[in-house]
Amino acid sequence: MPLLEGEIRSSFAMTEPDVASSDATNIQLAIERDGDQYVLNGRKWWISNALHPNCRIMIVMGKTATDGPRHRQQSMILVPLDTPGVDVVRNLPVFGYQDQEGHAEIVFSDVRVPSANLIAGEGDGFMIAQARLGPGRIHHCMRAIGAAERALEAMCARAVSRHTFGAPVATRGNVQDWIAESRIEIEMARLLTLKAAWLMDTVGNKHARTEIAAIKVAAPNVALKVLDRAIQVHGGGGVSDDFFLATAYAHLRTLRLADGPDEVHKLSIARRELAPHITRAE
Amino acid sequence: MPLLEGEIRSSFAMTEPDVASSDATNIQLAIERDGDQYVLNGRKWWISNALHPNCRIMIVMGKTATDGPRHRQQSMILVPLDTPGVDVVRNLPVFGYQDQEGHAEIVFSDVRVPSANLIAGEGDGFMIAQARLGPGRIHHCMRAIGAAERALEAMCARAVSRHTFGAPVATRGNVQDWIAESRIEIEMARLLTLKAAWLMDTVGNKHARTEIAAIKVAAPNVALKVLDRAIQVHGGGGVSDDFFLATAYAHLRTLRLADGPDEVHKLSIARRELAPHITRAE
Amino acid sequence: MPLLEGEIRSSFAMTEPDVASSDATNIQLAIERDGDQYVLNGRKWWISNALHPNCRIMIVMGKTATDGPRHRQQSMILVPLDTPGVDVVRNLPVFGYQDQEGHAEIVFSDVRVPSANLIAGEGDGFMIAQARLGPGRIHHCMRAIGAAERALEAMCARAVSRHTFGAPVATRGNVQDWIAESRIEIEMARLLTLKAAWLMDTVGNKHARTEIAAIKVAAPNVALKVLDRAIQVHGGGGVSDDFFLATAYAHLRTLRLADGPDEVHKLSIARRELAPHITRAE
Amino acid sequence: MPLLEGEIRSSFAMTEPDVASSDATNIQLAIERDGDQYVLNGRKWWISNALHPNCRIMIVMGKTATDGPRHRQQSMILVPLDTPGVDVVRNLPVFGYQDQEGHAEIVFSDVRVPSANLIAGEGDGFMIAQARLGPGRIHHCMRAIGAAERALEAMCARAVSRHTFGAPVATRGNVQDWIAESRIEIEMARLLTLKAAWLMDTVGNKHARTEIAAIKVAAPNVALKVLDRAIQVHGGGGVSDDFFLATAYAHLRTLRLADGPDEVHKLSIARRELAPHITRAE
Repeated sequence: MPLLEGEIRSSFAMTEPDVASSDATNIQLAIERDGDQYVLNGRKWWISNALHPNCRIMIVMGKTATDGPRHRQQSMILVPLDTPGVDVVRNLPVFGYQDQEGHAEIVFSDVRVPSANLIAGEGDGFMIAQARLGPGRIHHCMRAIGAAERALEAMCARAVSRHTFGAPVATRGNVQDWIAESRIEIEMARLLTLKAAWLMDTVGNKHARTEIAAIKVAAPNVALKVLDRAIQVHGGGGVSDDFFLATAYAHLRTLRLADGPDEVHKLSIARRELAPHITRAE
Repeated sequence: MPLLEGEIRSSFAMTEPDVASSDATNIQLAIERDGDQYVLNGRKWWISNALHPNCRIMIVMGKTATDGPRHRQQSMILVPLDTPGVDVVRNLPVFGYQDQEGHAEIVFSDVRVPSANLIAGEGDGFMIAQARLGPGRIHHCMRAIGAAERALEAMCARAVSRHTFGAPVATRGNVQDWIAESRIEIEMARLLTLKAAWLMDTVGNKHARTEIAAIKVAAPNVALKVLDRAIQVHGGGGVSDDFFLATAYAHLRTLRLADGPDEVHKLSIARRELAPHITRAE
Repeated sequence: MPLLEGEIRSSFAMTEPDVASSDATNIQLAIERDGDQYVLNGRKWWISNALHPNCRIMIVMGKTATDGPRHRQQSMILVPLDTPGVDVVRNLPVFGYQDQEGHAEIVFSDVRVPSANLIAGEGDGFMIAQARLGPGRIHHCMRAIGAAERALEAMCARAVSRHTFGAPVATRGNVQDWIAESRIEIEMARLLTLKAAWLMDTVGNKHARTEIAAIKVAAPNVALKVLDRAIQVHGGGGVSDDFFLATAYAHLRTLRLADGPDEVHKLSIARRELAPHITRAE
Repeated sequence: MPLLEGEIRSSFAMTEPDVASSDATNIQLAIERDGDQYVLNGRKWWISNALHPNCRIMIVMGKTATDGPRHRQQSMILVPLDTPGVDVVRNLPVFGYQDQEGHAEIVFSDVRVPSANLIAGEGDGFMIAQARLGPGRIHHCMRAIGAAERALEAMCARAVSRHTFGAPVATRGNVQDWIAESRIEIEMARLLTLKAAWLMDTVGNKHARTEIAAIKVAAPNVALKVLDRAIQVHGGGGVSDDFFLATAYAHLRTLRLADGPDEVHKLSIARRELAPHITRAE
């Protein structure tokens, strides 16, 4: 298994530039059956890792049906990167950063793969996406919290070493408030992440949906707040590449959009919160 | 023990109208030794429960010394409410609410009590206050979170039952965002409270100082945010006495001041966060 | 004209406890024609001034039709307070404050008034409300800004006179930030109010709709933020009746609901902002 | 005058990497007299425009004295870019953006210029900086507001054209709130900018200090809020270079630091606000 052994890498192609992909049923890339093959046509972007030198294969989400139930029209299929018709259009920048492993935009033109490459059955794409995204999301949240901790540490170190108007910046009440609020917010986000992970381990992803959605919203937002304060304490250095702050901010900002924007996760939390009241009101 | 058996009640007199009592060393009420008695002179306010019909005794914080180390000048002493010279000036309102058990303002004029009423020794007042306030604070936080849960439930019920422009308020994206953000924030505040309580149980109040300070800031602020959103969804009813929301808001607003304002707790968190960096910078 | 000369007062009965009155078409109080009279049946609340000793007459909004265009079913009618069937149920409290002039809840049971009391024609109620509310709203905003200025002044005076940890509160960076942010926000809210007033004077209420809606949202929210900071600087005194802060907060909080909640005004701003894009998209 | 005619460009070297330059008295670059020359030694960064092909000359802020009054130790001096000892170390990135005209970091090693290059007299540097920065600041604010307007327009256009869950994003209450809040905030920031400009024209920069400081804080913060909302509505496209949003966000983020960070401007506003109360308290 060269993938599990880390010799090759995979990437996941879901988001499309032409539709609001936060609603997964909007996805348009066509996966059409032709004999014992499937033929793919469409355009994907924000395919992370696709430009890594070891990346060999993509999981592509597309539509195998254009009618029937809205959540049974999508399927996932394996596409080797060197398949004819796979055209890497560009490496998308993030706030000016051009990452080496990259966020690819890829056009699929009559890309043919064996029908055995289909994951599970036709129409299972939405279901697989739901099941798969939980663990991925919590992984991102853990990294966000790590970045926030590092930013808080950098903020403290800088506040102690810089002096304005005759005293260290660390003695200013507003900077002390930022430090305390950062510690409070990081601590709360960490505990919520741990609870979500614990629920995933004990009762499963499905029963942890509210907590996973909650932490997917909370962790990046907390991290961005802490990073923004740390940038402010670092002055001009904070927006340059002398510190990790600007690049961390830029990449964490994408987390409020990737794997579903904040708004979609809040909607799903609100629906579950409202559900018992709707039943009662009927 | 009539106090432990609930037959009588006690109250705690610490805050003074004439000084910023968030700095406990500001306290001015004089406790002077005279033979085998102590004589108290000064003014206290926000003495909760003092007006309860069963309240018989107060713990009063004052100064037994005006020189020496700043944190060794304070002492605590027991004062029966019916001691001559104890004058209940008024019952303080909270945002217009005049609570029956009350928040008393009391003037102490040559109030004499036996010297045996002193708790621990002269100069121990500050230390006792530090030790005592942890459990009290977390109790308040638990109630704040309970109020927030109740407000979120009321907000959902109201949003489902009221219609504007042809649809239930619960279908509006902004109200759904409020509901989701409330759930996220309550969940995080609850976990932080539980962690603080667990630390108090396992490693003791002293090692839980950061967590106690953190939750003392976080819980009332989260509860106030949720209550404010719930009031907004309830319209005019929300600020009246038809719902519990306005009274809960008013009383929780005092929690951002009682037992130390937010700013004092944030300062103590920031100091502990900065401490290792200051050592390193030296 | 005893009303214009200030000998008697009037009040306006629009909001109803049983429906979300932010959508004026929800209003249910029935105004039915019976010969040369109209008969009113229904319940209103938040009728400001109705309990003032000189208040003699109400303008009541109700429905003269239950079918036809949704914005032509409402009418306004004059109802003397001493008309048989007018029953003042209670004086609504605002966060515990029971105001003397009052916010009345009134039940109308077969209240009969001459048909000549109808203002303009049947079905004109919605239109009159739209025309009338602009000037009323800006009046509230001016008072909100006045309260905010007063709170900022009180916050500065208090911050200068109170000391914690050896220095005036006014030297703390966080309190200085609050003061500066309050000045910035008040200044911006004042300028927006002045612009709205100037537009009303020069091009008329209709063309100032966006600015009136904007200031109706901005002014109370700015005032509440400033008041909340001032309360925090005042400590326990801030939530009592020793200062004007708590009562001002409570009453300004109603302004985010009265004459349309924030959300309705934001919706109307968003619609006008989106309109040219919708046309283009079609 | 090739500078006024636009044939050549100038740049301004003030900020230093080694000190918190928000306190201008921290500046360390040495300007020492040697006969009829001045010799400069030190390091500057964030010298905007210095890398423009037509940039020929810098105004450099440094210290001509290390004792005497703290605000009389600084001077400004003209330094042609091709003077020996002027070493352009690098072009600083802003987030990941490497701008062509650039933000240079320059080391000055025994850079000699004629003594006539000193602007005004020795010790006048701080005073010149104060006088010069007002107009520069308001120019930045106007551009910030322009960017915010453009972002609001892009947000509306996108919200109308994208559909999720069966309806345009523009129909969601949360997105409508963002649009309305953006309009309100932009309008207020614009009016404050206009007032500051009007005061500068009529009573002079000195008497417009509060308003200039206020708008220097308000305009970039408003613009960043609007841009962040617009990015969120644009999804992945918002952080890429397909729209102007990410680059505008990155560059406007520097405005909260350039020409004095928010905190320094708030401090100066707070001081003026507190001044009359301090006098009264004495």
